[in-house]
Amino acid sequence: MVTFDHEHVPLAIVEALEADGVAVYPGSAALQFAQDKAAMRTRLADAGFPVPRWQVVQTSDEVDAFDTPWPKVLKASKGGYDGKGVWIVDSLEQAADVMSHDLGPGAVWMVEEMVDFRQEIAVQVARSPHGQAVAYPPVRTVQVDGICVEVVAPAEPTSVSSAQAEALALGIAKELGVIGMLAVELFDTDAGLVINELAMRPHNSGHWSIEGAYTSQFENHLRAVLDWPLGDPRPRQHRAVMVNILGGPIADLHVAFKHVMARDPGLKIHLYGKEVRLGRKVGHVTALGDDEGELLDRARHAADYFQGVIDE
Amino acid sequence: MVTFDHEHVPLAIVEALEADGVAVYPGSAALQFAQDKAAMRTRLADAGFPVPRWQVVQTSDEVDAFDTPWPKVLKASKGGYDGKGVWIVDSLEQAADVMSHDLGPGAVWMVEEMVDFRQEIAVQVARSPHGQAVAYPPVRTVQVDGICVEVVAPAEPTSVSSAQAEALALGIAKELGVIGMLAVELFDTDAGLVINELAMRPHNSGHWSIEGAYTSQFENHLRAVLDWPLGDPRPRQHRAVMVNILGGPIADLHVAFKHVMARDPGLKIHLYGKEVRLGRKVGHVTALGDDEGELLDRARHAADYFQGVIDE
Repeated sequence: MVTFDHEHVPLAIVEALEADGVAVYPGSAALQFAQDKAAMRTRLADAGFPVPRWQVVQTSDEVDAFDTPWPKVLKASKGGYDGKGVWIVDSLEQAADVMSHDLGPGAVWMVEEMVDFRQEIAVQVARSPHGQAVAYPPVRTVQVDGICVEVVAPAEPTSVSSAQAEALALGIAKELGVIGMLAVELFDTDAGLVINELAMRPHNSGHWSIEGAYTSQFENHLRAVLDWPLGDPRPRQHRAVMVNILGGPIADLHVAFKHVMARDPGLKIHLYGKEVRLGRKVGHVTALGDDEGELLDRARHAADYFQGVIDE
Repeated sequence: MVTFDHEHVPLAIVEALEADGVAVYPGSAALQFAQDKAAMRTRLADAGFPVPRWQVVQTSDEVDAFDTPWPKVLKASKGGYDGKGVWIVDSLEQAADVMSHDLGPGAVWMVEEMVDFRQEIAVQVARSPHGQAVAYPPVRTVQVDGICVEVVAPAEPTSVSSAQAEALALGIAKELGVIGMLAVELFDTDAGLVINELAMRPHNSGHWSIEGAYTSQFENHLRAVLDWPLGDPRPRQHRAVMVNILGGPIADLHVAFKHVMARDPGLKIHLYGKEVRLGRKVGHVTALGDDEGELLDRARHAADYFQGVIDE
């Protein structure tokens, strides 16, 4: 058996299956936009969706000439994940250094404006073959070094209403013909929402929904690809907070597991059974209730304990 | 492989495993009281817990002479389940008719007063080998023909406080040395709580906890038998209502499944994959929210649809 990570399955395989009459969701026509950031930006901009200023470039001189202030964002159009394939560069020299690296097959260099945002938010959408679609409420995501570290759900954008953010994500899912889950990562800016990235799968920013929503993103992904009626995406409690457990110096998480369970019996702790490597997402903790600050304290404490940042 | 239903595993097998040094939870010393109602009544009464008036009998004349008014309750001390092994009799003649049936091996006849209750409630307890124990809040259970049809969680008893009901169940778990889940079924009467039955396993009256509590009875059963810290048994929302799906004229529940999902996307529907037989518990529906009446309407509608009682 051959398995592929997330949406990194080669498009040619999906297309071959489709040519044989196999139903593959999301299909190649949609999946290409999750695999190629340049194609995604072009298509979304053509359809009138708000994207950052960007351009395909071949040389560092073109990066320098790109008319936005430093720092600028350099991206490989393909192959990125969890911050890989994205560089923030402060100068022509840094851009030249980054661009001396080999790009993967079929990838091109992209330069983007560094978007000045108030916060980052994400909206999950489930969409089925017969066109039923539901949006989860917007959540606030916090990234460190390109990796999502925590999520607060729900979280109203500051520039637009939650309903407007949901409508934007639903519109993208329809425009691209997505089937299954779509995560739309957005910058919440003074000028409104700007699209950052798309993921066509259950996504880290939606893990809060496992316990926090009437229907989790995983259940709705299955319902959608089976063309079953979609479940209610609404939150069950006032607030859900998710904090990722990143790999630290502790290789065996099970001793920490018991400590954390005993200290805070109401936390929902998910360990993925992955080998612990530095900075790798190996689990997450969800806290549910009313007070965002208290929930963040509890979930961060547990994650810090698993990561060896604290020992009590 | 040999499998046994619930706590109906022969005690001799449990005792043989224990003699070989295998940890079995709940152990034979506790399990005997879930398997033998006469032993359970005797032990609980000796320890000062409130039980109905009862007596072991061998003849219908002894049932007649038992000093409580008709109707009286006749029970087989062993082998009952979901109303089987329990008869409500109105007269000496009815008692004689019931007692003409063969009792199972090792069972005796018991007569009990017919308890005049305001409502039936149940309290779940999880208890671990090192003695940690948590109680779920009391729930109201509604039985028809000896089968639980619906549960409202939480539900305060009328005769005592919820805390007193929880203390009673915790006291029983400790007295009997239960490890894992214990369900205590109680009559809520003018004179206080009276113990009806015990079950040493995750129980139908606790299915609401799958979505309704921070930690489900199934997770806490596993945590308890593994001697891990127990999880929070508290409800996550104001009210959870569970309605059982009993087998009706519809053999294939999957068409109904889609209808019910589409009609009410917020319901949590559990189908057990059992062959549908008349009156058999083949699934359950849980509704979560604020208004008990609305939740009951929604969950009953779904159960009625699965059971063929309604067709829209």
